[in-house]
Amino acid sequence: MTSLLIKNVRIMDDEPADILIRDGVIAEIAPGLDAPGVAEEDATGLIALPGLVDAHTHLDKSLLGWPWYKNDVGGASLMAMIENERDMKQRLGLDPHVQSMRHALKTAGFGATLIRSHIDIDTQGGLRALEGVMQTAEILADVVEIETVAFPQSGLTTREGTAELMDQALAMGANLVGGLDPCGVDRDPKGHLDIIFGLAERHGKGIDIHLHERGDLGLFSMEMILDRAEALDMKGMVTISHAFCLGMQDYPRVEAMLERLAAMDVAIMTTAPASSPAPMVKQLDAHGIRIGAGNDGIQDTWGPYGNGDMLERAKFVGLRNNLREDVEVKRALDICAGGGAVAMGKPRRALKAGAPGDLVLVEGEAVVQAVVTHAPRKLVVKGGHITARDGQTLMAAP
Amino acid sequence: MTSLLIKNVRIMDDEPADILIRDGVIAEIAPGLDAPGVAEEDATGLIALPGLVDAHTHLDKSLLGWPWYKNDVGGASLMAMIENERDMKQRLGLDPHVQSMRHALKTAGFGATLIRSHIDIDTQGGLRALEGVMQTAEILADVVEIETVAFPQSGLTTREGTAELMDQALAMGANLVGGLDPCGVDRDPKGHLDIIFGLAERHGKGIDIHLHERGDLGLFSMEMILDRAEALDMKGMVTISHAFCLGMQDYPRVEAMLERLAAMDVAIMTTAPASSPAPMVKQLDAHGIRIGAGNDGIQDTWGPYGNGDMLERAKFVGLRNNLREDVEVKRALDICAGGGAVAMGKPRRALKAGAPGDLVLVEGEAVVQAVVTHAPRKLVVKGGHITARDGQTLMAAP
Ligand SMILES: [Zn+2]
Ligand SMILES: [Zn+2]
Repeated sequence: MTSLLIKNVRIMDDEPADILIRDGVIAEIAPGLDAPGVAEEDATGLIALPGLVDAHTHLDKSLLGWPWYKNDVGGASLMAMIENERDMKQRLGLDPHVQSMRHALKTAGFGATLIRSHIDIDTQGGLRALEGVMQTAEILADVVEIETVAFPQSGLTTREGTAELMDQALAMGANLVGGLDPCGVDRDPKGHLDIIFGLAERHGKGIDIHLHERGDLGLFSMEMILDRAEALDMKGMVTISHAFCLGMQDYPRVEAMLERLAAMDVAIMTTAPASSPAPMVKQLDAHGIRIGAGNDGIQDTWGPYGNGDMLERAKFVGLRNNLREDVEVKRALDICAGGGAVAMGKPRRALKAGAPGDLVLVEGEAVVQAVVTHAPRKLVVKGGHITARDGQTLMAAP
Repeated sequence: MTSLLIKNVRIMDDEPADILIRDGVIAEIAPGLDAPGVAEEDATGLIALPGLVDAHTHLDKSLLGWPWYKNDVGGASLMAMIENERDMKQRLGLDPHVQSMRHALKTAGFGATLIRSHIDIDTQGGLRALEGVMQTAEILADVVEIETVAFPQSGLTTREGTAELMDQALAMGANLVGGLDPCGVDRDPKGHLDIIFGLAERHGKGIDIHLHERGDLGLFSMEMILDRAEALDMKGMVTISHAFCLGMQDYPRVEAMLERLAAMDVAIMTTAPASSPAPMVKQLDAHGIRIGAGNDGIQDTWGPYGNGDMLERAKFVGLRNNLREDVEVKRALDICAGGGAVAMGKPRRALKAGAPGDLVLVEGEAVVQAVVTHAPRKLVVKGGHITARDGQTLMAAP
């Protein structure tokens, strides 16, 4: 936590002003500020955006830094992809600490100052991935805040010993309990959800569950999630990632579900996928549901896509939701920045006094232009600390 | 048409070799070629891809080079967007020649050597847009081949005088007859289609019709298009752009339509849109239907998206169709390159003897990596003529 005075920067699409960050928090935004003894950065001609937020990714398993991976598994079967990945990780001897350093620094170089990462917990890798990412989180504490989710990627009820590992992961410091398609993967929704809600209750932690299940199956799992969230009084403590089923073409049923989600203040995380049904931003906004976005896995055994850039992700949110007006594209950006932080239950990243001193300076003429061109990042600041210049973090990746 | 010897370039993911282009055509690909008197380019470490093809765009109306356009019209009403655009073009005094030079050179800098552009023909602008783009096509003949479609963007039966302008446009040299949502825009499918097929017959030219109509409405319009194509024996001469209705969730009906399209060898052009139903690549491939892709309008009054890069478009084709395996992502690339040329009825751009001497050299480790990162373009060659280096065309835009 440090102090910094940024001079002559355009505040989103507004007039240029100075931003004074004191002890990690934005203290004042106004023209002509003076702060003796505080480091200064001239930002003439640049636009300031709030720090970006990747609210759903997997830091432990990208293949960044490895020879390019040739994918011949495809996307036909979820279980085949899961098994291929577990095997490949072992065969390559991926080091989750090294991979998460590479991935987190890449994302930070693009302007992210906050990341929520799911981390594989399974009987093959044990707690190694969590240890590696927690080590990364500690080393990068001044660069990017990393929140961890203990994630039973390979199944929970179907692989004996996984629940115990999840319990240990949470005791070790994982911030949230993860879960995954309770029908589709474990084929035991009651068993799966009873375990993860039990873990959440025992450790007093929130839940962030992957839910790819579509249509009625997804709504069924969502009902079972809500039943438990209501029974345990977990208002505001549950997140559903992906939530493809909310994109189904059944307006009254989706609306009824959105009302129930809003009542329990459940947050929704999306990648704004082009190839599957997805929660629609405007529809969720009408219910006041918190939305975050994430790059999900990047360049891993699941697929070649993704580069860690949350400004490009904001473009994808815009494209997926057919957002064309300036005000709409700015909402897409917010989902990948301040709104994403709120969806994570963290303070909103915003350009105003009292907000965290997290921001990104970009080249360009207008905020929407910066989003759709994912404009070059000139400077990234976290808590008043300069973390990246010209798209490169000051700390080098291993 | 000129000659060029490219040394030591990786042929897609294969081993490095030399590519000899003679008089605009690939003469030979093999290691250690020698061609006295022919200019040489060393391409060690680079990957060669076939020249890219933008098979659906609008060169006459991007706002490139203008102050960033603030969009407050949004995407709610097609007619509102059309009217806003016509007004803005006049208010700004957009010069279609200048705009098309900027747009075509940007696209060419990213490696496109072939473009099909729809061009607005309406009673307000008359033939001015076509004149401007035809002038651009002539100036850029050695840089990028531009094919023109006379496009009644504002309606045909509903705006008196448009059919006559379309007729003049075709007489002037427009290569194809365009059309647009015969139900949705003119609200007179018979009237609209009879006019455009009449023009095609009179001028002996093909048709490329925009069809955004979804579901049953789109299938109905498609049936009416096919009725006429069949009656006029226009096998292989009709293209349907967008064809959102082919993405509807009614497998047997879509399959029946695909059979009919395949029988008439109708080509489909797509942008692989994230926010609407879209023709599915694998499903069309199973029927042997020719597919091309395009960036459609970029940075115009319709929306802020798009930069002219067909390698990024290949990524969008991959994302929209959930293509993850190498072989699948390469098909996405093909749709934005050789396959797109075939969809336009042009010779396939390919890295083999006899193909046009059109290619792009990119940095990177693998073809799929080049697609998903839309890797930096180092050199673009059209007909053996070097047109761009490091993403910049040698010819400067006005
Ligand atoms: Zn995930
Ligand atoms: Zn179009």
